[in-house]
Amino acid sequence: MKQSDLLATHARISPFIHRTPVLTSSAIDGISGASLFFKCENLQKMGAFKMRGGANAILQLTDGQRAKGVATHSSGNFAQAVALGAQKMGIPAYIVMPSNAPEVKKQAVKGYGGEVIECEPNLKARETTLAKVVERTGATPLHPYNHRDVILGQATAAMELIEDAPEMDYLLAPVGGGGLIAGTALAAHFFSPKTTVLGGEPAGADDAYRSLEAGKLIPQTGPDTIADGLLTSLGDQTFPIIQKHVKRIILVSDEEIVAALRLILERMKILIEPSCAVPLAAVLKEPETFAGKKVGIILSGGNVDLKRLGELF
Amino acid sequence: MKQSDLLATHARISPFIHRTPVLTSSAIDGISGASLFFKCENLQKMGAFKMRGGANAILQLTDGQRAKGVATHSSGNFAQAVALGAQKMGIPAYIVMPSNAPEVKKQAVKGYGGEVIECEPNLKARETTLAKVVERTGATPLHPYNHRDVILGQATAAMELIEDAPEMDYLLAPVGGGGLIAGTALAAHFFSPKTTVLGGEPAGADDAYRSLEAGKLIPQTGPDTIADGLLTSLGDQTFPIIQKHVKRIILVSDEEIVAALRLILERMKILIEPSCAVPLAAVLKEPETFAGKKVGIILSGGNVDLKRLGELF
Repeated sequence: MKQSDLLATHARISPFIHRTPVLTSSAIDGISGASLFFKCENLQKMGAFKMRGGANAILQLTDGQRAKGVATHSSGNFAQAVALGAQKMGIPAYIVMPSNAPEVKKQAVKGYGGEVIECEPNLKARETTLAKVVERTGATPLHPYNHRDVILGQATAAMELIEDAPEMDYLLAPVGGGGLIAGTALAAHFFSPKTTVLGGEPAGADDAYRSLEAGKLIPQTGPDTIADGLLTSLGDQTFPIIQKHVKRIILVSDEEIVAALRLILERMKILIEPSCAVPLAAVLKEPETFAGKKVGIILSGGNVDLKRLGELF
Repeated sequence: MKQSDLLATHARISPFIHRTPVLTSSAIDGISGASLFFKCENLQKMGAFKMRGGANAILQLTDGQRAKGVATHSSGNFAQAVALGAQKMGIPAYIVMPSNAPEVKKQAVKGYGGEVIECEPNLKARETTLAKVVERTGATPLHPYNHRDVILGQATAAMELIEDAPEMDYLLAPVGGGGLIAGTALAAHFFSPKTTVLGGEPAGADDAYRSLEAGKLIPQTGPDTIADGLLTSLGDQTFPIIQKHVKRIILVSDEEIVAALRLILERMKILIEPSCAVPLAAVLKEPETFAGKKVGIILSGGNVDLKRLGELF
């Protein structure tokens, strides 16, 4: 991928996304010892950065493909991103969701005009059902992260942050399937090469950490963390970019994630989901690394159940 | 007050405040039928617009006054605004708080370097204790809203919104003691005279509505609303400005406030306190007034207990 690919992506998706604000907090700066710049993708359309990659993938389709629509399987933010992106472009979206997905998430997808197809709650059923939907409709299946156009879309969040907060020493994003961190690393590589990119990952879903250590992809099995957006494994598209451009991964515990979540809610007055708190937890875990440094953090999303959030505290 | 007073105020306090973002939500636009621009003072320093008025009042003091510090009685956002403003300017702050104020609010004031003086939880005890503190310390007492410099400070939120979202048809703010709505009305009067300014007020604390109807100040007695920042009565400084420049007040029920609160949390991913949801509740109550219009809303603050918030839903 080239610098011009990133610039073209940003121009392509800009009409379909919010340019999210970059917020600072003197209180959290005081606690961390760093100078922190938060790129608020929790304030993105449908509540997460996934809107960027989803929109870019859909916009890259041919007219013939668009006429038949798009399909994906997801119980999370990518489901909503594809539904909303398709709605904005006036094309059908077929979203395969496990039958045990929260009703509120199904309703959100339907609210964006997506057609929800339910299946048994396991990966095999999801993949089989998606294949059937694609066969029936001719829709183009979209992968939530292991996809060039999706990675390029996710890169645009960091591009905007680099513009708004130039010359950062460090830039951090959470690591799940790797779409966001790979895009972030590409953005820094092309537009702020002196910035060191680090990933934040839950200790209970540490496949990226282990894969980087081993020098080869090690899939995640049995993830166990409150950060429910980061349970998936890296893919063969995201891993090589991470290997090349991400310096290292910092692991954090669920307790550290909840403490960082609380700090952002109470001090910054913005809603975030647990996965989104992981990079700040990483910064707070290593004060010696970040003290006195200018640090960018991608806040990835804010789709969290309010009742459940209240129960955390 | 003159246009130049507002401009001078904004220049004076700018180094001490955030220029808060203006957010939009296509989801809430769809529900309301209006085009809404939210000025996010919940993302202001210490979590509320009160920082603006507090900072301006402190900056207007003479060197001699500043040396002796400032004092106020408050269990809410103004307490934190005075403490943080004083800390930033390196002067003492004495905050009289009722003994039953939540511990978290006392801790917040102390965290900003304020000295907390506790008293019995009634207005008389608060005023008597404040008078004693002023006598002992020589500090200058600051009123949370019935004060020229405070009103001018609050006006700066709407000034920024008018700059970022010009030519609004309507501009709404919540009404408690009237400092915010008076400042908002002054800003529109000088910088966007074609914009109609409306107040949102809880039906359970409707003294501004009744005062405008009667043409004279009618103090609030026995307020009963979830919007705990809007319990106070208008003052003799704020009422005349409201009478002159606010077209009318829209009353909303607690149920309507909670529905608007939920919409903002779920769709915009920002934390707000119940009082802050009142203007959106007013917009949703009168779709015929706002359909197709460009409407500005001042989101006043985000200092809410997370546990209590979870219990609302």
